[in-house]
Amino acid sequence: MLTLASDFGSPYPAAMKGAILQRTDARLVDVAHDLPRQDVRAAAFWLREVLPYFPPAVHLVVVDPCVGTDRGVLAVAADDHVLVGPDNGVLIPPAAAIADTVAVYAVDYDEPASQTFHGRDVFAPLAAEVHEAGVGLLETDGRFTPTDDYETVTFPEPERDGPTIRGEVLVVDDFGNAITNVPGSVLDEHFGRSIRIDGEPAPVRRTYATVSPGQRLVTVGSHENVELAVNQGRGDEAFGVAAGDAVELTLTSD
Amino acid sequence: MLTLASDFGSPYPAAMKGAILQRTDARLVDVAHDLPRQDVRAAAFWLREVLPYFPPAVHLVVVDPCVGTDRGVLAVAADDHVLVGPDNGVLIPPAAAIADTVAVYAVDYDEPASQTFHGRDVFAPLAAEVHEAGVGLLETDGRFTPTDDYETVTFPEPERDGPTIRGEVLVVDDFGNAITNVPGSVLDEHFGRSIRIDGEPAPVRRTYATVSPGQRLVTVGSHENVELAVNQGRGDEAFGVAAGDAVELTLTSD
Amino acid sequence: MLTLASDFGSPYPAAMKGAILQRTDARLVDVAHDLPRQDVRAAAFWLREVLPYFPPAVHLVVVDPCVGTDRGVLAVAADDHVLVGPDNGVLIPPAAAIADTVAVYAVDYDEPASQTFHGRDVFAPLAAEVHEAGVGLLETDGRFTPTDDYETVTFPEPERDGPTIRGEVLVVDDFGNAITNVPGSVLDEHFGRSIRIDGEPAPVRRTYATVSPGQRLVTVGSHENVELAVNQGRGDEAFGVAAGDAVELTLTSD
Repeated sequence: MLTLASDFGSPYPAAMKGAILQRTDARLVDVAHDLPRQDVRAAAFWLREVLPYFPPAVHLVVVDPCVGTDRGVLAVAADDHVLVGPDNGVLIPPAAAIADTVAVYAVDYDEPASQTFHGRDVFAPLAAEVHEAGVGLLETDGRFTPTDDYETVTFPEPERDGPTIRGEVLVVDDFGNAITNVPGSVLDEHFGRSIRIDGEPAPVRRTYATVSPGQRLVTVGSHENVELAVNQGRGDEAFGVAAGDAVELTLTSD
Repeated sequence: MLTLASDFGSPYPAAMKGAILQRTDARLVDVAHDLPRQDVRAAAFWLREVLPYFPPAVHLVVVDPCVGTDRGVLAVAADDHVLVGPDNGVLIPPAAAIADTVAVYAVDYDEPASQTFHGRDVFAPLAAEVHEAGVGLLETDGRFTPTDDYETVTFPEPERDGPTIRGEVLVVDDFGNAITNVPGSVLDEHFGRSIRIDGEPAPVRRTYATVSPGQRLVTVGSHENVELAVNQGRGDEAFGVAAGDAVELTLTSD
Repeated sequence: MLTLASDFGSPYPAAMKGAILQRTDARLVDVAHDLPRQDVRAAAFWLREVLPYFPPAVHLVVVDPCVGTDRGVLAVAADDHVLVGPDNGVLIPPAAAIADTVAVYAVDYDEPASQTFHGRDVFAPLAAEVHEAGVGLLETDGRFTPTDDYETVTFPEPERDGPTIRGEVLVVDDFGNAITNVPGSVLDEHFGRSIRIDGEPAPVRRTYATVSPGQRLVTVGSHENVELAVNQGRGDEAFGVAAGDAVELTLTSD
């Protein structure tokens, strides 16, 4: 199985699929091709949430704002999974979510004729080759060199000051739910009550439809982070936040 | 074969696919993941139009505004097809379009840790299990209880008063065609002539390119309903209508 | 293998998939279903860029503004590939990119009940049948007639006048890169220097990240044409151009 994830939109992913299918008849599964564009941290977040649900696979990940520069190429082994993509940090959080220990390999590759589409000309052929040969290729083929010198992505930590937690909106999903970096566990004692978000009260609930359509709520999403939502509406608009914005939670006793 | 339909956008459907592929190597076919958001009636309309074209399959459908509440989970057998999804009506019109008689089963399930993503944690595993075991599982496994107490979706009926038909726009497709609830048969005697839409004349034609680019027309779409269209343009904009709007057809003899 | 490309958006492609899967268990690969709507030339451009990367396959292409009129249906053999779609020119550039010589067949077909969705009712069944029977079907079945009377699409040629090249933006990709009809080879001697675009200087670079984020550049994309881009931004907006716009390059020596 070979999964594909990118920020390419359409139709560039099809060229990657063609290049892969020239080399393997692996099952292909699209993860997403509309990852937030050239946003390595957001891509790492989403792949961390999604890739661990897959059975062992080669995961091709191309969110690559520095395509064509001297940024490296990585293959990362995580249990029986291998992630293939650019050395910009995007692979590390999902690999760490798949396995407790990961092995990172720098990959020697030849610069292709075009310096703008490594997805098609470098990453897709590499992923197909790893799929065909198996994860053992990383240990036996001279083009793969174990390394601990690679980029990674870290997510900001929320800051707590008594009842106040200062966090950040990491991403907004397609429903408009604003997903923060605040762990859902801070809400454990507050379900059924209210807290304040940026000073304004909002009810804490386990799911959306426990408030009326159009009403705001604070909940814990499937990613186990605090999210700001609206039942059958958009949380980002109702709370006035976007990815990257600071958000302040105040745990009140009302 | 296992089809997937949702209003999830991206990348949540990939988590469902991973959860399925952990349990079965069935062929997966995406029907759509951009069904009108949390709009059960529109989703039921589209699935009624599309699912009957498939060979026997398990159809996973997750348009589920009441996720995490006490709404039930259904498996619906229709010939050799099984539809799996929430008990909110979305499964019934497509099941009825597949087979003359359908058998509806309420499904016992354990509430998962997260109450916001039953697509991944309840419906996907259930669909995979039904696919692996076959439709017979619904008759033999104690978790499936035949029921005639379930939600359904009905589409509004148009009202006819002599030459005037008062209908409603059910959905607008991605081309901008406004698809009404009025059966196409009302136009049988009017092709090549004009009728009035909300008082304004519009030609009745069998297909788009029989009028000039940019011109309005009334036609019968592949769903066999009256639709308001523009050749190489958007009917919704030209006729000033959106999903849910009333529309009045006057069958004139000019 | 059977690829699908259309301008249908969603969910109409699923009806095509169902119709295909009723007739074959071929691997299906989505190329794109958001090709520029009813824009035959843009679709031909994109398919010319993408389809040659695939191994031998039947390629179903439905960008068909004249559906339901008397426009013909074609099957085009190119090496071991077959392209199936409307006779409006969209198939010819990609076929010519796959093979030096192509064989074009007019296809007899029965007009289906609905004149608005030949993708589902004509092209999908035809593509499935060609896939099952193999490319030899085109030579042996009486419904296929060799023809040299068919529509084609041509791309405008740029005009050169000394250091000035007048071209056109053919398409804008999802990143916002404006892809022109000017061959990239005109920039061969200019990398690392500047040229003028519509009178304003812009640096010529081999890839995006060689200028600062937000800065304009002129590069040669994976299609080997000149493109107007912005590092981590949208070239179409920064250069003020859209598909179809004229663009003037002045090769300067500064």
